[in-house]
Amino acid sequence: MLNKQQILVSRPDSPASEPGLAHFKLVCTPLPVLAEGEALVRNHYLSLDPYMRGRMLASKSYTQPQPLNEVMIGATVGEVIDSRHPDFPVGCRVMGDGGWQQFSVLRSDAALPWRRIDTTQVPPSAYLGAVGLPGVTAWYGMHHICLPEPKQTIAVSAASGAVGSAAGQLAKAAGCRVIGFAGGAEKCRIAIEEFGFDACIDYKAHPDLALMEQALRETAPTGVDAYFDNVGGLLLDAVLGQMNAAGRVAVCGALARFGKTQHAMQNLAAILTSRLRLQGFVIAEHLDLWPDAVRDLSRRVAAHELKYRETIAHGIEAAPGAFLGLLRGKNIGKQLVQLS
Amino acid sequence: MLNKQQILVSRPDSPASEPGLAHFKLVCTPLPVLAEGEALVRNHYLSLDPYMRGRMLASKSYTQPQPLNEVMIGATVGEVIDSRHPDFPVGCRVMGDGGWQQFSVLRSDAALPWRRIDTTQVPPSAYLGAVGLPGVTAWYGMHHICLPEPKQTIAVSAASGAVGSAAGQLAKAAGCRVIGFAGGAEKCRIAIEEFGFDACIDYKAHPDLALMEQALRETAPTGVDAYFDNVGGLLLDAVLGQMNAAGRVAVCGALARFGKTQHAMQNLAAILTSRLRLQGFVIAEHLDLWPDAVRDLSRRVAAHELKYRETIAHGIEAAPGAFLGLLRGKNIGKQLVQLS
Repeated sequence: MLNKQQILVSRPDSPASEPGLAHFKLVCTPLPVLAEGEALVRNHYLSLDPYMRGRMLASKSYTQPQPLNEVMIGATVGEVIDSRHPDFPVGCRVMGDGGWQQFSVLRSDAALPWRRIDTTQVPPSAYLGAVGLPGVTAWYGMHHICLPEPKQTIAVSAASGAVGSAAGQLAKAAGCRVIGFAGGAEKCRIAIEEFGFDACIDYKAHPDLALMEQALRETAPTGVDAYFDNVGGLLLDAVLGQMNAAGRVAVCGALARFGKTQHAMQNLAAILTSRLRLQGFVIAEHLDLWPDAVRDLSRRVAAHELKYRETIAHGIEAAPGAFLGLLRGKNIGKQLVQLS
Repeated sequence: MLNKQQILVSRPDSPASEPGLAHFKLVCTPLPVLAEGEALVRNHYLSLDPYMRGRMLASKSYTQPQPLNEVMIGATVGEVIDSRHPDFPVGCRVMGDGGWQQFSVLRSDAALPWRRIDTTQVPPSAYLGAVGLPGVTAWYGMHHICLPEPKQTIAVSAASGAVGSAAGQLAKAAGCRVIGFAGGAEKCRIAIEEFGFDACIDYKAHPDLALMEQALRETAPTGVDAYFDNVGGLLLDAVLGQMNAAGRVAVCGALARFGKTQHAMQNLAAILTSRLRLQGFVIAEHLDLWPDAVRDLSRRVAAHELKYRETIAHGIEAAPGAFLGLLRGKNIGKQLVQLS
């Protein structure tokens, strides 16, 4: 049996370069013979995430670069189909760092540990979304940095995305008024109608700082108490200008575009005048909180309190194209690739 | 007996306008008759502080503006010379918001409460400096935001000033390597020789971001773990680029120039890539910690562990000129006016 894999064969020239299909190559390799302590996983879904763009670069970031000519990293969920590992018998459902491929070898010493998942209450794909990396990212940023209190106003960028939609719903559940930012009328409609945001500002309709500040003043007339920031740049600048005293800003690594725009910040003095706290975070550094977060998020998903959308591409061949679409904002909600 | 007072008669046109002598007017008024619960204080020293510039403006900031045609606000230390208040008998030493004047009426309902001070171990003027607002500001920013740990590298701007010199010494006492920024060779020499900084970078000798980053890389080759920021702008930008993972930045209100420069920040992405925490603060919001801070700072001053410099102008007539000099960085250490 052969294993179709996507490997990275070249890197974008710079962080500002748009990645292309030519960076990826589909290869077929034979399945390995399992050693003691290993299991073979048939991947059902692959998660595509914006952080992967950063991994494609050779430059220093908060993570190591993806090696060239190796299978692209990425989280998967799947089923154990062969096993020499006592904790992962054939038939069990698992999630882990399976990569862009149809089959993965599960090892106990993986950097990101493989976990068995309970799919009786929560669909498997949700472990890559609302109950996975994006959901836990939203959970950490909201509950450990934004610290929403009832009746406060919380702003969330990329509001229809996998992280933003979860962050907004967690803030609503905490009794807040929640304002989203999203690109285009359709994404704004989804943020409000499907995810329960109180309002959503189309940033494409407010292309400069003054227009965005005006829209935000009208939408949040009492100011913003906390901001879950997925994008940085002009939107962050506009929100800073409207922050209330002692406000919190969670600067989220999930979308990894923070500060890469050439926007010259005008409202940084608000850090002082409004005594703000800005906190950057990367969820991979808070894995100790993962079980608590997954337990809470699973309960909310099972109870239909936490809603999510998925955009699903089909087949490992489609992964590079779907990834480029994700970077251009073509998806709504969590971008997945169905592998089997 | 007459009381010479400095009142504010006009405001600068904008936050960017350089204040001038014409904004102030010296007036003489008769001393009031004390009511029950009041005491008369002969002020010995008046504190001049950068925050006063912000108060001269009509614009919204984190504090109320100074009213026109009233005595300029400002902290003083002095001696009670007449009293109808049982807690403040004649002869006791006090500090409070006495204003730019020779004599003040102490009332129990003052916004900033009057306190009796113990001048047996600590000189009275120190209650306006190392044991007063600047010292407590340094203490809060260092111990509640910068959180220095032994062998870490801590950077401090305005290193020879009243706040910066105290912040640097507190970081040294915590076992850190401390790097200062100051304007000019003489201030750098004082930071190192008198206040014990391990190094001090003359920002006037490194007038653009690339030069400052280069100087900082050479001076802090292992990166910066925390930054006590008194100035914002280009210096903050340079430090952000050298921050280590999980670094802390205390954005201090004491100098109140943060973000007012036109410098376009280049290194804001470090908030994410290095998972930084930036926290703005104004010490007036943390008065509950004042007794703890004063106790600790007094002990250090009495033990000669915490050193300070003072620049002293003489007579209330000299206050406006001394204040303008402070804004231009003419002083070294705490700027005071001796009133009697």
